[in-house]
Amino acid sequence: MQYPAYASLSSTFRRIYRFEHLLALAGWDQAAMMPDGGNDARGAAMAELGVLIHQTLTDPALAEVIAAAKQEELGSDEQASLREMIRQWEHANLLPASLVEAKTLAGSHCSHEWRTQRANNDWDGFLANFREVVRLAREEAQLLSQHSGLSPYESLMNKYEPGMTCAELDRIFGDVKQWLPDLIQQAMRKQAAESVVAAQAPFAIAAQRELGLAVMDKLGFDFNAGRLDVSHHPFCGGVPEDVRITTRYTEDDFTQSMMGIVHETGHARYEQNLPRDTVHLPVGRARSMAVHESQSLSFEMQLGRSPAFLALIQPLVCQHLGEQAAFSVENLAKIYTRVKPDFIRVDADELTYPAHVILRYEIERALIDGEIEPDDIPALWDEKMQVYLGVDTRGNFKNGCLQDIHWTDGSFGYFPSYTLGAMYAAQYFATIRQLHPDLDQRIAVGDLAPIFDWLKANIWTQASRWETAELIERATGEPLNPAHFRAHLTQRYLA
Amino acid sequence: MQYPAYASLSSTFRRIYRFEHLLALAGWDQAAMMPDGGNDARGAAMAELGVLIHQTLTDPALAEVIAAAKQEELGSDEQASLREMIRQWEHANLLPASLVEAKTLAGSHCSHEWRTQRANNDWDGFLANFREVVRLAREEAQLLSQHSGLSPYESLMNKYEPGMTCAELDRIFGDVKQWLPDLIQQAMRKQAAESVVAAQAPFAIAAQRELGLAVMDKLGFDFNAGRLDVSHHPFCGGVPEDVRITTRYTEDDFTQSMMGIVHETGHARYEQNLPRDTVHLPVGRARSMAVHESQSLSFEMQLGRSPAFLALIQPLVCQHLGEQAAFSVENLAKIYTRVKPDFIRVDADELTYPAHVILRYEIERALIDGEIEPDDIPALWDEKMQVYLGVDTRGNFKNGCLQDIHWTDGSFGYFPSYTLGAMYAAQYFATIRQLHPDLDQRIAVGDLAPIFDWLKANIWTQASRWETAELIERATGEPLNPAHFRAHLTQRYLA
Repeated sequence: MQYPAYASLSSTFRRIYRFEHLLALAGWDQAAMMPDGGNDARGAAMAELGVLIHQTLTDPALAEVIAAAKQEELGSDEQASLREMIRQWEHANLLPASLVEAKTLAGSHCSHEWRTQRANNDWDGFLANFREVVRLAREEAQLLSQHSGLSPYESLMNKYEPGMTCAELDRIFGDVKQWLPDLIQQAMRKQAAESVVAAQAPFAIAAQRELGLAVMDKLGFDFNAGRLDVSHHPFCGGVPEDVRITTRYTEDDFTQSMMGIVHETGHARYEQNLPRDTVHLPVGRARSMAVHESQSLSFEMQLGRSPAFLALIQPLVCQHLGEQAAFSVENLAKIYTRVKPDFIRVDADELTYPAHVILRYEIERALIDGEIEPDDIPALWDEKMQVYLGVDTRGNFKNGCLQDIHWTDGSFGYFPSYTLGAMYAAQYFATIRQLHPDLDQRIAVGDLAPIFDWLKANIWTQASRWETAELIERATGEPLNPAHFRAHLTQRYLA
Repeated sequence: MQYPAYASLSSTFRRIYRFEHLLALAGWDQAAMMPDGGNDARGAAMAELGVLIHQTLTDPALAEVIAAAKQEELGSDEQASLREMIRQWEHANLLPASLVEAKTLAGSHCSHEWRTQRANNDWDGFLANFREVVRLAREEAQLLSQHSGLSPYESLMNKYEPGMTCAELDRIFGDVKQWLPDLIQQAMRKQAAESVVAAQAPFAIAAQRELGLAVMDKLGFDFNAGRLDVSHHPFCGGVPEDVRITTRYTEDDFTQSMMGIVHETGHARYEQNLPRDTVHLPVGRARSMAVHESQSLSFEMQLGRSPAFLALIQPLVCQHLGEQAAFSVENLAKIYTRVKPDFIRVDADELTYPAHVILRYEIERALIDGEIEPDDIPALWDEKMQVYLGVDTRGNFKNGCLQDIHWTDGSFGYFPSYTLGAMYAAQYFATIRQLHPDLDQRIAVGDLAPIFDWLKANIWTQASRWETAELIERATGEPLNPAHFRAHLTQRYLA
């Protein structure tokens, strides 16, 4: 064996990968399949395995192996692999097992109850569980912060986008806040003069599902290594060898579920195309959640809402849902680029979406850094929704601060990933369009290879080989540059 | 703490229970949800957790705690609980971890490939994987046998029905072989004079599923703690808090899937009604697989195929599948008691079923005890099918020795449980009928409480409190008495 310590680490991480397989499956099932009565037993089982993984990573013997591996004359690939192992190991060793278990249990309980509480607009009921989730997240953030020297919130955010700082985010989001409100107003004025034909409901759910499957097929989803199901909150779960995406249907509207499927398929193809020889190691997994969102948003925003892609799938829409005046390519494009400030982030249009993210970023950052308490959230939410989007959410918890699952299970620090992802995606497509000036013509006739080949070569198969900043620069020739995002939005909404 | 060593054991077994939750879920998903491409990763993940459970049970420290618990002045309930812990612990400690892992991997691989091989009638392809499954099962049987003093086959059988011997089985099955062939012939002669109206296909699968759910509801299935799905081979899986049953549908016939659902619902209600305060301990789990089958067969054979029950659910059949001449209660009863020697065990009628079981018992016993080799199975199968049922299976592996999943994953010793279960079920119902001479009238109007209350009090909530023989004697007032089975069959098929 060339690198005995490194090989020993690989074997430990392979074991963890297998345990995580079962956790991922259990989490998918909990959201997509499990009846309510199974939740306590499921939560306990998942927590138990979570503790075991934590114990494996905090075993003092592992620290010795890591120290030994650092002394080995590793090749550059192994060095990158070791770097990612150490990142995961350090993170785990900063948290005591009791905190990990308490967080899993509190998060599982709170997010399970939230499903009913949200439907009942029951903020007080939610708060009773949520205070504990926040308390534990702050405890985690403090522990991480003491080690990293970052602020508590930054320390949580770095779980999802390592290397990102609040200073950089403030700069980026500050820039967006400069031009976005005006861009939204201009786009709304432009669209006020246009007429959009509304699609006539109902749309049978079985037909919507078939349409979704057909669109996934066009997008290259490997059905031998994944499934499409239904859950309350759509997500991409499972494991790289078996990716489980979900959507939710309503008979009143097919457009959200269809585009939701396009979005999750972007996540799925990233997972399905991770390098199989290292997929059991941290270096073989997705780079970060922001890069993950850059895949779903490449699919949904850059590709999915483009007139060229809508021209490609329009025949599928007609095949599964019947012919309608609303199903002309031009009208579908209008539906999918309609700008309307509204309550729900996951239903928001591309242009108002960043405002939702900035609102959550500002609230969760203040919450974790201890500047506000959970009780303060509704008032702050109401105020910011009014300022950023002119929307009144007072008393409307269901469509206000209870709308997202992220806070319910303690995933603070995730939200910025969405808008960072949108910016990365815009930057990828600027690069792809430079390489393929005829990109739209090729998309319209079903030749998606220029996109998928580029993503596969530059992002998917690179996994965690490079730090995010280097990944982006290698792929696009420059660091993260939000100008591409602004240019994309301006081109799409004002041209 | 009153019994510190016993309490420590309880905590260890609770941990194991939680891990088994995840294994049960992964197994259900593998059969009901997972796409093919996920199988290798799934098999590896399940094997890894299987090894961990095995390591937990074979930890030398556990032996010391068990020794200490034996010295504690336990109450009789705790003594029974300790007895069941020791049974599981002894079993695990007889097998090295490498064997457990190899068995899981070989069984998972063989049964996964079997799905395709069976469809292709590919015995040779199956044999290539199956030889390894047999080799490992023999190794396991040898190790168990050295400890128990039982024969290798008996040692495997005792995993499913502890306390049962080949001598007793030979006596029981020998008895059945005396009278069954003649009873089959007499029943066929009697039925030759009767006309049965065939149900007119097709039956939409969505409608069959709705019918199945309605029947489950009548049978008291708790949908807040379980689901109905589809798999290639129907089974009852999941965990007591969340029981997953499956069926398979064909548009050509609804009768098999409907009665299959009745069967699995019997398994499910046993699981759903295990005592919740001890369900995480071996003493709180199902007594044995034969007792488990006695529940499914109480539901399917004693209750489900009775004219009274068919009268109860006949309106549901008409509601979901439409009105047909074939759906008269009298005709449904004829369909569900039709005797016809045929290929497939799971599709066999009540009367020919024991012949299928005896055939498998004789072959697998010879295989495990080393009297025959895997290559010998088809010839032996052909011969016994001819003798017991007059059915020609030569060259027909798909409907012959490739039909069952049990051998594919190494579950040798299970088959006798089916017929033992049928005998226990007949004995339960003889007892219930003595208590309730008006049972059939009550069933017909939907009052199933006499059955469910008795099963709940005498079997479900007793879990593994007593050895099987004592459980049966406490419940029915006498030891296993196959005369009840014969009397039931004679009454149903010749009266």
